[in-house]
Amino acid sequence: MQQSPKLVGLIQDRIAGFIADQHAQLTDLGSDVDPLIREIESYLTGGKRLRAQFLVLGYRSVRELEFNASTLNDEASAVLDAACALELFHAAALIHDDIIDRSDTRRGRASTHKVFERFHTQSELRGDADRFGQATALLLGDLLQSWADELFQHALRTLQRLELGDGTRAREHFNRMRTEVALGQYLDVLEEQRATFAEAAVQLERSMRVLIYKSAKYSVQAPLLIGCAMAAADEEQEQALEEFGLPVGVAFQLRDDILGVFGDEALTGKPTGGDLTEGKRTVLVTLTRSKLPSGPLRVFDDLHGTPDLAPEQIEMLQRTIIDTGTLRRVEEIIAQNIGVAREKVREAPLTPRAARELIALAEYAGERQS
Amino acid sequence: MQQSPKLVGLIQDRIAGFIADQHAQLTDLGSDVDPLIREIESYLTGGKRLRAQFLVLGYRSVRELEFNASTLNDEASAVLDAACALELFHAAALIHDDIIDRSDTRRGRASTHKVFERFHTQSELRGDADRFGQATALLLGDLLQSWADELFQHALRTLQRLELGDGTRAREHFNRMRTEVALGQYLDVLEEQRATFAEAAVQLERSMRVLIYKSAKYSVQAPLLIGCAMAAADEEQEQALEEFGLPVGVAFQLRDDILGVFGDEALTGKPTGGDLTEGKRTVLVTLTRSKLPSGPLRVFDDLHGTPDLAPEQIEMLQRTIIDTGTLRRVEEIIAQNIGVAREKVREAPLTPRAARELIALAEYAGERQS
Repeated sequence: MQQSPKLVGLIQDRIAGFIADQHAQLTDLGSDVDPLIREIESYLTGGKRLRAQFLVLGYRSVRELEFNASTLNDEASAVLDAACALELFHAAALIHDDIIDRSDTRRGRASTHKVFERFHTQSELRGDADRFGQATALLLGDLLQSWADELFQHALRTLQRLELGDGTRAREHFNRMRTEVALGQYLDVLEEQRATFAEAAVQLERSMRVLIYKSAKYSVQAPLLIGCAMAAADEEQEQALEEFGLPVGVAFQLRDDILGVFGDEALTGKPTGGDLTEGKRTVLVTLTRSKLPSGPLRVFDDLHGTPDLAPEQIEMLQRTIIDTGTLRRVEEIIAQNIGVAREKVREAPLTPRAARELIALAEYAGERQS
Repeated sequence: MQQSPKLVGLIQDRIAGFIADQHAQLTDLGSDVDPLIREIESYLTGGKRLRAQFLVLGYRSVRELEFNASTLNDEASAVLDAACALELFHAAALIHDDIIDRSDTRRGRASTHKVFERFHTQSELRGDADRFGQATALLLGDLLQSWADELFQHALRTLQRLELGDGTRAREHFNRMRTEVALGQYLDVLEEQRATFAEAAVQLERSMRVLIYKSAKYSVQAPLLIGCAMAAADEEQEQALEEFGLPVGVAFQLRDDILGVFGDEALTGKPTGGDLTEGKRTVLVTLTRSKLPSGPLRVFDDLHGTPDLAPEQIEMLQRTIIDTGTLRRVEEIIAQNIGVAREKVREAPLTPRAARELIALAEYAGERQS
């Protein structure tokens, strides 16, 4: 997908404005809350803004929308607000995710719980810096979840005022997204804690379920559906985006699985083979394992999930994924999914411009290198 | 406040029905999510339902509402939904709070993270049971926060359909409540981590701020305001409930401070002197410290916050709180606050029945023994 620098800039400004508005209402709470606001500002600077852009694309699939004017009209502002709401929600999810995974970094900076662990030490507080960091990040995630919701409400209220729809359907998609991603994350946590891999078919079903709920629906399908519902899509249009969004989301995440094993650190910002050292039970790994006889399988399982793998061990695992034909197989599945998505767009009652943009999105999801 | 057993029963049934409806929509996620739903059901059974009842009272302060009919009308259903939404939100807040405090029990049962720590052990999962419990409780709290919001939306939509108001003002109070309680909790966490008590005036301001944001506004004022805004209160009515709710909330929490030191375990369900062993920097403790010369202050600080205080040490701290005149002083502040609240109700443009109920609430808040 070609990024729209104009849109990305608007998203950044709107988020910054919203945070400043919130902060201005918090003076009675005193200056002790200022470090929290600073962390929110810093956390929400930068990033690819994928979900926000998918929401806008969902909207534009149904109704024309202009973001290039020097001042945005109310309709564009409302869509922008909803897009920013997804970014706030995503930040909340990532902050909580990093507590769960005890990740020290995020987007090339310290994760939120690490930031407040350091704050604890620097402020010479008593007690456990580690726990203080986690507690603060937990509450900050809760706060951002509420703020996301607040900004989303604001967006829907504006559309309602403009008599562009009551927002009920968009709300339903937003609600469903929140429920499904929380449960998808739980299934992911659970999966990582199972003592052994399940029998191949069961394991594949489980890995696919995590992929669909934690990623495909959450990152691609839901933003598109929220966007198109905001534009008062008819049933046929919504169904088209639903049937388009899922395979694109699946392709998006399968590409992520591949990048997590073979990706170039210079492009992804994550160490090559990171998914292997972390022992992630991705669809890519699950399919590889299903091809291995018991001897090599034992070797694979011994190495997979070892934090300090040597480069040649990582290479050996990569080789196995290639030699079993799994890399090729996953590339095929990605291509199939993109094919299905293309087909759906072709049949859908959408404008030619929207169709072009959606196909560009599908291709980006399947082919991206970062 | 006299509890309404009829209302408490309706709240219980509605919450159970909402959870069942949600569960029915989650079949695609498979049976692995069932333990989460069971925990939500169990967690949300019982409790005093104070916030729910305050919301209903807020509504009835402005508009008559009947809960005794054999079937509820749509208006009563909407108010009930909003009341239940507060209970769901509160459960989310408590579940996260217990992670922060590493509390093993809640309402006489295992806390949520403990439940899933045991689930981990019983299911013979690999990895750290403790961390799995926390991760699951964190996600469950996130889920409940979303569900609370969803049920609240549903309530406002019903009122809108009945042309009883657009819910904007009620939403504002709900949003403000969520923001303030998250930040109030942060200030509480921060307070507990400061190496030393601040100078008396500063410390009192800090302790009062935590009391107001984490408790007085959240538990009493906000539910009343949300309720009255749902009933389309005029400005004068809303202001009356705002000015009534805050002192009642302050009295409510100051009584809690007293019960945390002097309360009867048989009535409160918490060990006598629990706040002393936990070292909570309550207003009661802060005021006591401000009365002590440096020698006795050192003794007080040495004992306060020691987890394994002997009964005679607890008694000594209790004696100090009494002998410095602080217990009497806090009782006076409670009485003053109740007096202010009474005055506000007398002056307010409310029905006599509402005024009676509000005064009963104020008295309950100030005098409760559990």
